[in-house]
Amino acid sequence: MAKIEAASPFAPARFPDLPRVAGLRLSAARAGVRYRDRDDVGLAALPEGSTVAGVFTTSRTRSAPVLWCEARLAARGDARAPAAFIVNAGNSNAFTGANGVEGARRMAAAGALAGGAAPEDAFVASTGVIGEPLPVERIEAVCDALAGALSADAWEPFARAIMTTDTFPKGAGRTVTLDGVEVAVAGVAKGSGMIAPDMATMLAFVFTDAAIAQPILQRLLIEGADASFNAITVDGDTSTSDTLLLGATGASGMTEIASGDDPRLPAFREALNGVLTDLAHQVVKDGEGATKFVAVTVTGAESVRAARRIGLSIANSPLVKTAFAGEDPNWGRIVMAVGKSGEAADRDRLAIRFGDILVAEKGWVAPGYREADAAAYMKRAELSVSVDVGVGAASATVWTCDLTHAYIAINADYRS
Amino acid sequence: MAKIEAASPFAPARFPDLPRVAGLRLSAARAGVRYRDRDDVGLAALPEGSTVAGVFTTSRTRSAPVLWCEARLAARGDARAPAAFIVNAGNSNAFTGANGVEGARRMAAAGALAGGAAPEDAFVASTGVIGEPLPVERIEAVCDALAGALSADAWEPFARAIMTTDTFPKGAGRTVTLDGVEVAVAGVAKGSGMIAPDMATMLAFVFTDAAIAQPILQRLLIEGADASFNAITVDGDTSTSDTLLLGATGASGMTEIASGDDPRLPAFREALNGVLTDLAHQVVKDGEGATKFVAVTVTGAESVRAARRIGLSIANSPLVKTAFAGEDPNWGRIVMAVGKSGEAADRDRLAIRFGDILVAEKGWVAPGYREADAAAYMKRAELSVSVDVGVGAASATVWTCDLTHAYIAINADYRS
Repeated sequence: MAKIEAASPFAPARFPDLPRVAGLRLSAARAGVRYRDRDDVGLAALPEGSTVAGVFTTSRTRSAPVLWCEARLAARGDARAPAAFIVNAGNSNAFTGANGVEGARRMAAAGALAGGAAPEDAFVASTGVIGEPLPVERIEAVCDALAGALSADAWEPFARAIMTTDTFPKGAGRTVTLDGVEVAVAGVAKGSGMIAPDMATMLAFVFTDAAIAQPILQRLLIEGADASFNAITVDGDTSTSDTLLLGATGASGMTEIASGDDPRLPAFREALNGVLTDLAHQVVKDGEGATKFVAVTVTGAESVRAARRIGLSIANSPLVKTAFAGEDPNWGRIVMAVGKSGEAADRDRLAIRFGDILVAEKGWVAPGYREADAAAYMKRAELSVSVDVGVGAASATVWTCDLTHAYIAINADYRS
Repeated sequence: MAKIEAASPFAPARFPDLPRVAGLRLSAARAGVRYRDRDDVGLAALPEGSTVAGVFTTSRTRSAPVLWCEARLAARGDARAPAAFIVNAGNSNAFTGANGVEGARRMAAAGALAGGAAPEDAFVASTGVIGEPLPVERIEAVCDALAGALSADAWEPFARAIMTTDTFPKGAGRTVTLDGVEVAVAGVAKGSGMIAPDMATMLAFVFTDAAIAQPILQRLLIEGADASFNAITVDGDTSTSDTLLLGATGASGMTEIASGDDPRLPAFREALNGVLTDLAHQVVKDGEGATKFVAVTVTGAESVRAARRIGLSIANSPLVKTAFAGEDPNWGRIVMAVGKSGEAADRDRLAIRFGDILVAEKGWVAPGYREADAAAYMKRAELSVSVDVGVGAASATVWTCDLTHAYIAINADYRS
């Protein structure tokens, strides 16, 4: 396939400094699953006492690794035990039939061996081409290398090893003091279409040394994913492999959070959500061909669900996204996208803003609106679009990027 | 705005010959609503004894003309009376507040006067830029010209007058003999995005000289639209103005079809659906930037609704559509799109065909599949993709086009 060389205009100058997560060790290795000139397998080893939570794609054609993780997570439940996350890039082991199930099982066994966990406590994720058998023997062959390279600081090698069409490695971290104990939350992600199932699945692995009982960890992750990874879209497509795993080592020395009323939860939740949102935004900013990062905020909706649906209708509309690409303050397309969402909106109370510029209100263009102002605003790289639909009090924000010639070039102009 | 000069590769060499619909008269005129160098208003005058049916956009932000038509259709009910359809291009009279309501009313009055119908029997449709006041006085000024030009054969002038970003005028017709009486069904359409609300709404006006009671006519139109205009997609966007009107003059001399059991109904339905499907396919073939016309057939689904949703999930996926543009037999993206539809599918019984080429079956690539065969097939202009999802017996077909650089150019590369 053609290589798209240009990095996203949002690529940071260097990988961020991430805090050390007590008890966690990471490594990467070169297995040659598909890529030959770079690391393509990452391993995370979590120590005794760890709890694990996960959120996965809702696709009806989920990959073998996703089905494996769902089954292992259900079986593991609230256990406190070592765990291993093993991830490869270049082959998604999706739509590979019985062969795929066996590949996921063997890959998990390899990860367990390298990471010092029981095979049933190893979680696997694969991203890359679909429909080709996973050459799992190449991953097994780097087991010793992965085990030998484990270190507390290998964030960037791990983040780079799981990339496919990404143009930059993605990491985010926070620290928070809970009752006098400093706790770290940090993770990495890959993804550059909201999803292209053959090369651009969204994967994220987040870790903390907080001690948190599994049911609470799982609930925090579901809520956090809802406001971050489930609130971003590049092209509205959903991978068969999307995976978000959260491991808590408990090694920070804090006493365990075992109740939903624990007063330390709000501060931890804020740190976790900060990491999840940061990673999710990086995925959008590395969206295939993206030149604009756009926050779409919907207010005045009947419910949060309705606000989210209206926001995604705007954020997924090809006509809205091409208008962003063209730096065109085309508010008519916003009206169209609100209308097609199917959610309640009062046409005669609709208000639309680009940044702080009031564009339309009360069912018509705002009296003081000057298109030149909006056109100047649209030249920014980071944009905000706000829509009040005038029927209620609920709101939601989603994030997206523009739809450009480069998206077409990445997805149409090569033969797989 | 930049003019996109290239005609669709599917544009016919000339406008089709359409049958004469007894009692129907058509005309076009140059009002200068926005375009200065072409006709931009069309009129259809239906005689005494006509019945009218309509289907409209489901958008929650429907335009003033759509709201007008819905109200007039409800009030008119099963009346047999003259009617007028008046249509302009260049301004959609959408999101124009109270001014828009008044504009639609005045435009209807002008159409009624020119077409010889009562004002409450005039139906209006407007397509073009949104959010700008309709210069209805320019339409009123061509009232006499429209009345004077009425003729039985003005199909092409009418079809051309309602175009916006269309690269060719669209018409289709059929004749059918019902109990010894020859009856004509013919119509015109415009639209070249599934919809771009500012310039590319879908409008269609179909006429017949059959005599059909209004409740039956309305049911036929709803069913026919479902399998034609509701089964096509260019970009998944829905206009605030989509309008499909069907007028039956009854002037063919046949006795009225007044019952759903009438033995003449199946033959009439076939002719009507033929016209509707032909027009709908022309809209897709003139899809913005389209180079491929693709039929997506889903079989083995739980219900027709599920089959339709899976088909639209495939047909609307940017990744699938860019693969068509790239002539890439990327069946992994089809699997992804089936999965994201949310409808039941059995991953291990899924079968995918490009034309007659079996690509995948039983959850994996088909044993005899050779990518070179599929790649050669994808070079055709008209493609067929078939997916059996392996859970039931229901099926549906939808039609779409590819997503190309030209779509981006049309929608992003100019400032409105």
